[in-house]
Amino acid sequence: MAEDNKSSLDALSALCKRRGFIYHSSEIYGGMPGFWDYGPLGCELKANVKQAWWQFTVRGREDVAGLDATIIMHPKIWKASGHLDTFADPMTMCKQCKKLMRADQIGDIREELGKKAAGINPAYALSCPYCGGEMTEPKPFNLMFKTVVGPIDDPSNVAYLRPETAQAIFAQFQNVTATSRMSVPYGIAQMGKSFRNEVTPRNYTFRSREFEQMELEFFIPPDEAVELLCGHVCTLADNPDLTGAPQPDWGWEVWHRYWVEQRLAFYRAIGLPEESLHLYWQKGDELAHYARACVDIEYAFPFGVQELEGIAARSDFDLTQHQIHSGKALDVFDEALKNAVKAKTPEELDAFTAKTIAAWAARGKSEEDARAFLAKLYDGKYIPHVIEPSAGADRMALALLCNAYDEETLTDDKGKTDTRTVLRFHPAIAPIKAAVLPLVKNRPELVAKAREVFAALQRRWNTFWDESGAIGRRYRRMDEAGTPYCVTVDFQTLEDGTVTLRDRDSMQQVRISVPDLLAKLDAEIG
Amino acid sequence: MAEDNKSSLDALSALCKRRGFIYHSSEIYGGMPGFWDYGPLGCELKANVKQAWWQFTVRGREDVAGLDATIIMHPKIWKASGHLDTFADPMTMCKQCKKLMRADQIGDIREELGKKAAGINPAYALSCPYCGGEMTEPKPFNLMFKTVVGPIDDPSNVAYLRPETAQAIFAQFQNVTATSRMSVPYGIAQMGKSFRNEVTPRNYTFRSREFEQMELEFFIPPDEAVELLCGHVCTLADNPDLTGAPQPDWGWEVWHRYWVEQRLAFYRAIGLPEESLHLYWQKGDELAHYARACVDIEYAFPFGVQELEGIAARSDFDLTQHQIHSGKALDVFDEALKNAVKAKTPEELDAFTAKTIAAWAARGKSEEDARAFLAKLYDGKYIPHVIEPSAGADRMALALLCNAYDEETLTDDKGKTDTRTVLRFHPAIAPIKAAVLPLVKNRPELVAKAREVFAALQRRWNTFWDESGAIGRRYRRMDEAGTPYCVTVDFQTLEDGTVTLRDRDSMQQVRISVPDLLAKLDAEIG
Repeated sequence: MAEDNKSSLDALSALCKRRGFIYHSSEIYGGMPGFWDYGPLGCELKANVKQAWWQFTVRGREDVAGLDATIIMHPKIWKASGHLDTFADPMTMCKQCKKLMRADQIGDIREELGKKAAGINPAYALSCPYCGGEMTEPKPFNLMFKTVVGPIDDPSNVAYLRPETAQAIFAQFQNVTATSRMSVPYGIAQMGKSFRNEVTPRNYTFRSREFEQMELEFFIPPDEAVELLCGHVCTLADNPDLTGAPQPDWGWEVWHRYWVEQRLAFYRAIGLPEESLHLYWQKGDELAHYARACVDIEYAFPFGVQELEGIAARSDFDLTQHQIHSGKALDVFDEALKNAVKAKTPEELDAFTAKTIAAWAARGKSEEDARAFLAKLYDGKYIPHVIEPSAGADRMALALLCNAYDEETLTDDKGKTDTRTVLRFHPAIAPIKAAVLPLVKNRPELVAKAREVFAALQRRWNTFWDESGAIGRRYRRMDEAGTPYCVTVDFQTLEDGTVTLRDRDSMQQVRISVPDLLAKLDAEIG
Repeated sequence: MAEDNKSSLDALSALCKRRGFIYHSSEIYGGMPGFWDYGPLGCELKANVKQAWWQFTVRGREDVAGLDATIIMHPKIWKASGHLDTFADPMTMCKQCKKLMRADQIGDIREELGKKAAGINPAYALSCPYCGGEMTEPKPFNLMFKTVVGPIDDPSNVAYLRPETAQAIFAQFQNVTATSRMSVPYGIAQMGKSFRNEVTPRNYTFRSREFEQMELEFFIPPDEAVELLCGHVCTLADNPDLTGAPQPDWGWEVWHRYWVEQRLAFYRAIGLPEESLHLYWQKGDELAHYARACVDIEYAFPFGVQELEGIAARSDFDLTQHQIHSGKALDVFDEALKNAVKAKTPEELDAFTAKTIAAWAARGKSEEDARAFLAKLYDGKYIPHVIEPSAGADRMALALLCNAYDEETLTDDKGKTDTRTVLRFHPAIAPIKAAVLPLVKNRPELVAKAREVFAALQRRWNTFWDESGAIGRRYRRMDEAGTPYCVTVDFQTLEDGTVTLRDRDSMQQVRISVPDLLAKLDAEIG
């Protein structure tokens, strides 16, 4: 990490502590590595991020339903998902100094120690970066936190804290489909805590052991169903319009790109402009075996360019796994598909069968599997495929804090300079939307008028009342909290009802009537 | 449980499943006792309950700050709070049939089994209610879920899932006080998941192993500080006005009652009228040793009258415990208090000292403790006392569902009867606020107009679009979901811009302009 990046992270984390955004968990007991608490401003920021995501993803759409499932679920879910067998880091221990570390991070640790730990034999890639000692054979360490449910401490009662929210969506797919009156293509979204027993939590709140996810599983028909229904499958080569309503002929590739565009639109809406983000398209050999494509949306944190969100095309892997492990059918039935198949001639169907078998073979799948899939498909049934935009609320909050943080040098009329610390949050996610400031606190009629304005704002938005100190100092305190609007009630207010609206970013002040103020906040915050 | 109550709970839980309010967790894997998932409508209901609580408790006040702390915290927190040593149920096992049960529930189990398990010897209070076998000596079973943090499975790394959200507030009291610019009296509020490894989870979602709490710790000065500052302590005998702003001379008793009234006001605001609630004042011997008073707000669930929320006056017990166990000072300093002490004559202070020692003695506290307390107090320092309104989000959602559920018999003009199932939610917590229904779906100009209305509503409220089926059936579907308003766009809308607003409860329909509709929803929902 470059020195200036490190110092900018230090300045930000100092502000976060000082202004009550983020504290170490259990700080008075010495803290807990990888656990962070959100203070009065931080919990509002994070709540706003989550609410914005929910509004954008669920309430603002007609094709996504919400879910709020438990953190502790049936352990078979993690067998089906693969987490029980493969969600592990390779752990190794130095036989000499007994330090534990991840085998895949030994190089990084050595590099970080570099200057300090001269004299260590660099010839042995797997020697201890601290003392040069011999390391044990790496063993997989599962990152799921374990617990026991019920009074009997027995292996049969072991359960896990979910390492991701996504699996609950697959496990409840059947219930939600049956009770929401939605049909594929549609999505199920969930926000909530997840837990990963990271060996080395790091980078402030970025890699924590307890964190919050915002995940959408958007279920789509397999391309073969689309082709039978529409006669063709729209791909990116067809240059589809991704800004309008989704179309029935879209194949997975278009749906995947659509969700990438949607997510970028979301980031724009909360104040992370496209220039601040980087799209990383995973290469073929980086993809999970079942994934068709995966894009990481990355942000340039002070500690490096890191993933904010992944958007994966996961095929029908997840529901298929849960169908196998639960023994419950997780396919859907589409009457229109069945009718479309009926309308085909036997020759047309034979051609379709042959084409599909060939396409599956090209992806390394057996003819037997293709035929089993087609038999169901011709009956109107299929297991939906999934596009998964999976974001982290803590990472997003941290990116928003990094993006918002600014130290601005101001020069006054006399040439005296001063540094203003300001968090330039988008109004939609700012913890406090507006502060109401009576110019003086010893004039009851002025304070009463300010109270009226405060009550009108507080009804809809998180509003702060501050009557103590010089007005300039009050503005600066709100700048540090990232409050976009300061509303000052002064003597002119008593005469003509207008207030002074001070903009955080430009520091410009304008006079505005209270109804206009309410309309402005409604337009800019929602 | 009376038969009709049981059948009303059965009808409610069937509706909850059918309409996507509540599902068994991990249902396709056979479920997990004590774990419940919220479906598309349920998660909106619960989110609305939480948002209403947060607005009422935090954003709508100037004397409460929010916190969002981790579920896994330092294990010493649970030593300090007493949970590690005493948060346990007495477990016993039948030596014959090996069934495990809570020793304190054997009587209940026997009663429930009553009719079925005739022939069991009722003479032995501790014999197995299932087989009459001999029970083992009851042993305490701690209800906290255990886990291990970090890669080394060692007792020193054992941690717990929080059994309540309150303790994080005490652990972060110092940080929040230092960074929020608030001073006592003020409160810290938190919502979030808690976990209790209940031996026998029961009563639908009421007693779950994973549940969500909404807790406020409101910190007040000890009465002795109030007396020094104000010259007297206001008690309930003074008949204070509890509906206005809190006053500096309030003693703990008034603060406690104030919060009981506030909580009742909250329940009114979300549609649980005072008649539906019962206040249970805990008797002296039911109170925890440190508690001064505790009121349970109870609701008549179909399975019995049960606690929704407890409001406890917890003295300075919690912060004192954390001060002892962390070694960090958790007292606050009040300049005005120090000055008030300075302004007293030595005789006045001596009299105050004598009076305080006598009062403490009457509560069984030593002179030494009283003097240590006074020495700090005369220096302007004290450990705040706490009033704790502690509510459960799942219980509240369940009470709201029970309260809202209604089966209404309708008789039409021809005398034909019909049963209407309706959830009479208060608009503030209804999952869907309004449905927009184009009268017909095959008239583009009518659908386009309905889309306009839909967009205007959806921007601020969770709004449902439904264009399929007869209008009467669409109304009924919304009745079952508890949607207070149905907005029908018909041919007259195209002429004069008015829509039909149909009220869920009265089923009355009125014509209203779209701006009036928006104003009405703003007034009734917020």
